[in-house]
Amino acid sequence: MTDLTPLGAALRTALDGRWAHVRQDARERLTAEEFMPDPTLDMEAHRSRTFDQMRRLAETGQPREGFPVEYGGKDDVGGSVTAFEMLAHGDLSLLVKAGVHWGLFGGAVANLGTQRHHEQYLDAIISFDLPGCFAMTEVGHGSDVQSLRTTATFDAATDELVVHTPDPSATKTYIGGAARDGRLAVVFAQLVTGGRSHGVHAVLVPIRDESGRACPGVTIGDCGAKAGLAGVDNGTLAFDHVRVPREALLNRFGDVAQDGSYSSPIEDPSRRFFTMLGTLVRGRVSVAGAAGSATKTALAIALRYAVQRRQFAAPGSDEEVVLLDYRTHQRKLLPALATTYALHFAQGELVSALHDVQTATEPDERAQRELESRAAGIKALTTWHATATIQACREACGGAGYMWENRLPMLKADTDVFTTFEGDNTVLLQLVAKGLLTGYRDEFGQMDTLGMVRFATRQFAGAVAERTVAGALVQRLVDAAARRDEAVLLDRGEQLRLFEDREAHVLDGLARRLRAAGSAPGEAFAAFNDAQDHLLLAARVHIERIVLEAFVAGIDACEDDAAAALLDRVCDLHVLATVERDKGWFLEHGRLTPARAKAVTAQVNRLCAELRPHALTLVEGFGIPHEWLRASIADPRVAP
Amino acid sequence: MTDLTPLGAALRTALDGRWAHVRQDARERLTAEEFMPDPTLDMEAHRSRTFDQMRRLAETGQPREGFPVEYGGKDDVGGSVTAFEMLAHGDLSLLVKAGVHWGLFGGAVANLGTQRHHEQYLDAIISFDLPGCFAMTEVGHGSDVQSLRTTATFDAATDELVVHTPDPSATKTYIGGAARDGRLAVVFAQLVTGGRSHGVHAVLVPIRDESGRACPGVTIGDCGAKAGLAGVDNGTLAFDHVRVPREALLNRFGDVAQDGSYSSPIEDPSRRFFTMLGTLVRGRVSVAGAAGSATKTALAIALRYAVQRRQFAAPGSDEEVVLLDYRTHQRKLLPALATTYALHFAQGELVSALHDVQTATEPDERAQRELESRAAGIKALTTWHATATIQACREACGGAGYMWENRLPMLKADTDVFTTFEGDNTVLLQLVAKGLLTGYRDEFGQMDTLGMVRFATRQFAGAVAERTVAGALVQRLVDAAARRDEAVLLDRGEQLRLFEDREAHVLDGLARRLRAAGSAPGEAFAAFNDAQDHLLLAARVHIERIVLEAFVAGIDACEDDAAAALLDRVCDLHVLATVERDKGWFLEHGRLTPARAKAVTAQVNRLCAELRPHALTLVEGFGIPHEWLRASIADPRVAP
Repeated sequence: MTDLTPLGAALRTALDGRWAHVRQDARERLTAEEFMPDPTLDMEAHRSRTFDQMRRLAETGQPREGFPVEYGGKDDVGGSVTAFEMLAHGDLSLLVKAGVHWGLFGGAVANLGTQRHHEQYLDAIISFDLPGCFAMTEVGHGSDVQSLRTTATFDAATDELVVHTPDPSATKTYIGGAARDGRLAVVFAQLVTGGRSHGVHAVLVPIRDESGRACPGVTIGDCGAKAGLAGVDNGTLAFDHVRVPREALLNRFGDVAQDGSYSSPIEDPSRRFFTMLGTLVRGRVSVAGAAGSATKTALAIALRYAVQRRQFAAPGSDEEVVLLDYRTHQRKLLPALATTYALHFAQGELVSALHDVQTATEPDERAQRELESRAAGIKALTTWHATATIQACREACGGAGYMWENRLPMLKADTDVFTTFEGDNTVLLQLVAKGLLTGYRDEFGQMDTLGMVRFATRQFAGAVAERTVAGALVQRLVDAAARRDEAVLLDRGEQLRLFEDREAHVLDGLARRLRAAGSAPGEAFAAFNDAQDHLLLAARVHIERIVLEAFVAGIDACEDDAAAALLDRVCDLHVLATVERDKGWFLEHGRLTPARAKAVTAQVNRLCAELRPHALTLVEGFGIPHEWLRASIADPRVAP
Repeated sequence: MTDLTPLGAALRTALDGRWAHVRQDARERLTAEEFMPDPTLDMEAHRSRTFDQMRRLAETGQPREGFPVEYGGKDDVGGSVTAFEMLAHGDLSLLVKAGVHWGLFGGAVANLGTQRHHEQYLDAIISFDLPGCFAMTEVGHGSDVQSLRTTATFDAATDELVVHTPDPSATKTYIGGAARDGRLAVVFAQLVTGGRSHGVHAVLVPIRDESGRACPGVTIGDCGAKAGLAGVDNGTLAFDHVRVPREALLNRFGDVAQDGSYSSPIEDPSRRFFTMLGTLVRGRVSVAGAAGSATKTALAIALRYAVQRRQFAAPGSDEEVVLLDYRTHQRKLLPALATTYALHFAQGELVSALHDVQTATEPDERAQRELESRAAGIKALTTWHATATIQACREACGGAGYMWENRLPMLKADTDVFTTFEGDNTVLLQLVAKGLLTGYRDEFGQMDTLGMVRFATRQFAGAVAERTVAGALVQRLVDAAARRDEAVLLDRGEQLRLFEDREAHVLDGLARRLRAAGSAPGEAFAAFNDAQDHLLLAARVHIERIVLEAFVAGIDACEDDAAAALLDRVCDLHVLATVERDKGWFLEHGRLTPARAKAVTAQVNRLCAELRPHALTLVEGFGIPHEWLRASIADPRVAP
C-alpha cells in the first residue's frame, strides 16, 4: 500500500476500529487474484474461476475463524464479518459465493444444527470440500418465509424425513451453488409429523453425489445469466419425495423423536420461527458491510478521476477546470462520501453488537431483537446508499465510467441485488417500524386491538432501545446545545435533537394514526396499507438517528485531533445533506423556517467547498490499497 | 399483438400521435430477431450478431426514409426518429449501432456535407455497405467539443488535408463502429489553413480498407467490455499525419479553396460552430425517444409482475395480497408511470418541432435554438427518468428482476450511458439554463457585464420562447383557474400556474444573483460556480413546465372521452408527484402552506389507489406488442 499522508493514516485508524488487525491482515493477504474477473470470460468460465478462488480462500484458513473453537475456529464473529467486508473490495462473485457457503450454509449448520451435525460436517464445510447451498427462497415465496410450501414429512416406518416440492411455486430458486457446485443443501421446509405441521425448519438434503450428478429425486435447474455476479451459480431445486434420515433435521430449536413426537425448547411457534431466523442475522450484517466496501471503492475511483479530469476553461483563463472544482460535481460526490463515513461507523457498531450478542455466555433476548432491528435497518439504508452512490459515481465519470476496465459497471451490476437479497429493503424497513411500534405499545399500551400489529409480528418484531451505545455522549451534547441562531445548524447537539425530534414526531403520528384506524379484520389491512409510507418513514428516520449517533461516537473515540476535526466537518455535511433531502418534512412540520431551510442548502454548498481539498485524504481514510482499485482512471500516482 | 381493451386502444391512439403509421408499421415489421440478444454470447459473437442485424435492417428500407428524397429517402425526419424510438423496444445494441451509423455518421454526411459527398457516399451509407463512425469525443475532451485537439491541416502543395493526433489526449475514444466494422469516419478536428485555425470542422477519413485492415497512419484500439451495449464495437482512433483530399472536408458551413483560403456562409466562428453542432440535434431527440421506450418496456414488465405476484396474507384472510395493492409498491411504480406518459407527450411535441424545423424551406434560427434547448432539456430529464425508473422496476421485481431472462438487467445496463452520450445531462441542463438567461438578458438587459455569460455562450445558447405549442390552451386554463381551496391541487389551471410561477421565480432569482456577482475575470468563474446548482434548478423547472404543457395539450387532443378522463388522472398524479418531490422548494418559497403540502402527499396516495385498477390498461396504451416484452415474468396471458 502506498504511503498514506499523516492525516489519511489517522483517519484510517479511526475507521479501522475494533477489528483493525483483521483489516490490516486482509490488506496484506488478499492478492490480485481476488480482485478483477476477466470480462471476456463466459458464464461457465467465470463460475469455474470463482470455484477455484473459493478453494484458495479456504486454504488461507481465514473462513475458519468465524466457526466454533472446537472445530479449529476462533468464534470470532466480528472478525469474520470484518474479513468479509474487506473481501468485498474485490470480486463480488467470490464474495457472494463465500457468503453463501460459509456464511449462510455453514452458519445454518453451526447455529441451527447440534453436535451431531457439527461433528459430521463442519470440517468439510470449512475446508470447502463439501460445497453447500442455502435453500430458503421459493418461486412463490421470498420475503414471506413463514409461508414456504416445501414439506419435510416424518415417516415413522422408516425413521426418515420425506422432503417434497408439492407444486412448481414451491421450487427453491435463486439458490447460490445449486446450478453447478453444491453437494449438500440446507432446505427450509414445513416440518410435518403425525399429520401436524410445526412450521418452517431446516433439513440437510444431499443434492449431488461426488461425481456431480443430481441425487435421485432432486431436479436441479440453472437460473442462467443475471445482471451481475456471473461467477455465482444460482439455480433451482425441486424435490420429489426425497428421503433423508430423521437426524438430517437441524434440531437445535425443534426436534422429532423416533416416535414422531415433536419437541422444542421454545414453546411459542412464532417465537421459535423468529429465533431460528434470528441466528441468520449475520448475513444481513455482512451484506451491509459488503455494500459499504463497494461504495467506498466506487467513490475512490470517481474521486480520483474527479481531481485529475479537467473540462472547459474558466472564463478569462486558459486553464481548464478540474471536475471536482465544479459545485455540481462536488454535490454529486461529497455528500455521498460523508454519508459513507457515517454508515461506516454505524456498521462498526453493528458488527460489535453482533459479536457481543453472539458470543455472550447468557442469551439476551432483548439485545438480540435490537440487533435484528438495527441489522435490518442498516442493511436497507446501506444497500440503497450503495445503489445510488455507485450510480452517481458511474455518471460522474462519464463515458469512462461505462467502461468495464474502470470497474464501476461491475460494481453496479454485482451489488444491484444487495437491496433484495438477505431481505427486501422495503420489507426490512417495515420490520424496523413494527419493532418501534411494539416498543411504543409496550410503553403506552392500547395498541393490542390492532389487527395490524398481528400482521406486523408475523413478519417479526424487535423492541428497540431508545439510545445507541453513544447514549451518554449524545445526551451531553443535546443538553449543551448552543441554540445560538447563526451557528445552530452546525451545533452537534442541535443536530442530534433535530434527528431525535423528527423520529419521535413521526413515530408518535404513526401510532396515533394506527390507533385511530379500524381494527375489524376487513379494515386491518386497509389501515396498515394506508399507513405504509408513514411506516417506512418512521423506520428510516429512526435508523438515520442511530447512524448519526454512531458517527458522533466514532468522532469522540478518534484520538487524533486533526482527524477528529476533519471528521467533524464530514459529519456536518452528512447531517445537513440529510436534512436538505428531507427539507419538505422539516418545513411541513415547522421544524425549520423557510430562512433556515435555505441556510441548510447554503451550508451544504459551503461544506462541500470546505471538504473539496480533503477529498483524496478522506478516500485514504478508507484504507483501500491502491493496487486493489484496479481502474485505469483511478491512477494512484496522483498525489492528494 | 393481443387484442387491446377498448380503453387501452383509445390510449394507444392518443399516444401514437403524428407518426402513428410509423409506429404501427414497426409493430408489424419488427421481428423476434430484433429483441433479445443471447446472454451467453461473448463480446465478439454479440458484435457479429449486431452487424448482421444491421444488414437486415438496411434491407427493410426503413433507414432510408430519413434521408433526402434525391437519394431514395423521404426526408421524413419525424418518421425516422419515431421508427428509432420503436426499435428501442428491442435490442439496444442494434439501436445504438443504427444510431451511430445512420444517425450520427449518415446525418453528418447529409447535413454537414454537400452534393459531392452526398453523391459519393449516401447510397452506400444507406445500404450499410459502407459502415461508418462518428469520431468526435477525444480522451481529453468530451463535453467541451470546441476544445478538441485533433488537427486537419491544409497542405497546399498536395491539395490535401493532413489529419493528425498531436498527443494521446487527442485520441478519439468511445467511437461506435471503430473497433470492428467501421470503414469511413467523420473526424472532428481543428481546421488549419495557412497557419491559422478556423475551429472545429468535420473531415471524412477512411480508417479501414475493404479487407478490414487499418489504413496507413490510422491506429485503431478497442474499448473492450462495457457495462452494456456489448454488440456495439466502441474503439479508439489515432491519426499519424493521415492525408485525405481537400474535398474530404464536409464543407457546407466552412470550405477551403485550392489556394488555402477559408470561406464560410457564417461569419462569426462561434455561431458557425454552434450551427454545425445544431444539425446534430436529431441525435439528442433520438436518445430521448429511445430512453422513453426502454422505460415503457421496464414498466410493462414490472407492472405485469406486480399484478400477478402475491406475498403475505392480509390479516384475517388466507388470501395473499397482490404486490400492486400495497401502497409502497404503487408508489414505486405508478408516479413513474404517470411521468412516463408526460414525457411521452413532450417527446411527441419535440419530434414534431424537429421535423418542422428541419424540413422548413426557410431556416428559422430562433426556432432552431429553441429546438436545441428543448432537445437538451428533454433528453436530460428523460434519460435520468429512465435510469431511475428501470432501477425501481428491477427492485420492484425482487430476485426475478435480477435475472437476465426478465430483461430488466439488460435494459438497465444498456441505457445507463444514455445520461452521458449525446451530451452529459449536467452539461445539457446548463445549456438550457444559459439559453433562458440569454432570453432573460434580451428582455431585461444588464447582463452583458457578466463573464459568466461569455462562459455560457461558449457552450451554446438558445433563446427559449415563453410558451409551448399549447400556449393558448394553457392560458385559457390558467385564466379559468378555480382557486377553490379544497380542489385547488387538482385544478389544471392552478397546477400550470404553480409550475409557471416556480419557473419565473427561480429564473428571476438566478438572474438577480448573477447580476449581483462580480464580473472581473477572476471572479467570473466563482460567480458561475456558486450559482451552478441554481442554474440546474432553473433548467429543470423550465423543462418540467414544458413537459406539463405538452401533457395538457395531449389530453386536449385526445378524442376519446374515457381515455381523456383517465389521462386527466394520470396527469394529476404526474403533477402532484412532481410537486411532492420538490416540496421543500414550494414550502421554502411560501408557494405551499404546510397543510397543503401534506394534502399533496395524501393526494398522491389517493391517485395511486385510483389508478391502480387501470395499471395494465395504461401499459396497453404504450402499444408494446406482447411478444416484444420477452420477459418470463411479464406473462401476457394475464388479462388486465
